[in-house]
Amino acid sequence: MKINFRSSCPLASTLDIIGDKWSLLIIRDMLIQQKKTFKDFSDSAERIAPGILSARLKLLEDNELITKQKLPNNQKENIYLLTDKGIDLTPVIMEIILWSDKNLRNQNANMYSLANAGFDKDKFEVIKSVQNNYREIVRNILG
Amino acid sequence: MKINFRSSCPLASTLDIIGDKWSLLIIRDMLIQQKKTFKDFSDSAERIAPGILSARLKLLEDNELITKQKLPNNQKENIYLLTDKGIDLTPVIMEIILWSDKNLRNQNANMYSLANAGFDKDKFEVIKSVQNNYREIVRNILG
Repeated sequence: MKINFRSSCPLASTLDIIGDKWSLLIIRDMLIQQKKTFKDFSDSAERIAPGILSARLKLLEDNELITKQKLPNNQKENIYLLTDKGIDLTPVIMEIILWSDKNLRNQNANMYSLANAGFDKDKFEVIKSVQNNYREIVRNILG
Repeated sequence: MKINFRSSCPLASTLDIIGDKWSLLIIRDMLIQQKKTFKDFSDSAERIAPGILSARLKLLEDNELITKQKLPNNQKENIYLLTDKGIDLTPVIMEIILWSDKNLRNQNANMYSLANAGFDKDKFEVIKSVQNNYREIVRNILG
């Protein structure tokens, strides 16, 4: 599906693609939890509905944030991997997490600490490390 | 409206509030374009529908990202101002704009340049300057 961008604003243009409650969670699952199959994403704590998950994966693929492919040794299952364009969203995700940690803890008492995710260090180090880890995983999968 | 957070994930918690195509655009209009009335927000290039705008303003107010108030010299019109919690979203908006500038320009040829918005400088300087400007505006309005 080709996006009809609403305006010439860069912020609006990004939201035209990932401005919803789910897209960044799918990217989080790939980037931080190394999930890569439809079933993996379905199993997240937020319980995304299959129809929404399908639609979001398609939109992310159409906009080249992720790829869908089959591996030579498994022709049954599609695996989804982030492209460089998708991996580039790491700083956005990082800033949202930092905002949440500072500003929503009093509203969501169950929110886990940044230390839990290893996100309590220098943010540039965390971003670089998350991105490098993910690129290494992709290399290992694609061989 | 009280938010029922979907999970203990900080990323998901933020998206429970601003995970849509419009909320960050309203915050952009306040922060960068100094808009403050319902009519101001209605006039943006993306043409938000009045019903959606009402709902988003209410959600942002309920979650203390913005305040709604009347000024002593104008009891007719509500004005909306960002709180510190709302102003704290500036780095998130900045990172989205940078991502868009790098990654969506080939899809949205009309996208305006960062120089147009004065966003082509060191990002920490831009963030600080946007936030300080906005705080000054709020001080001037509230007297």
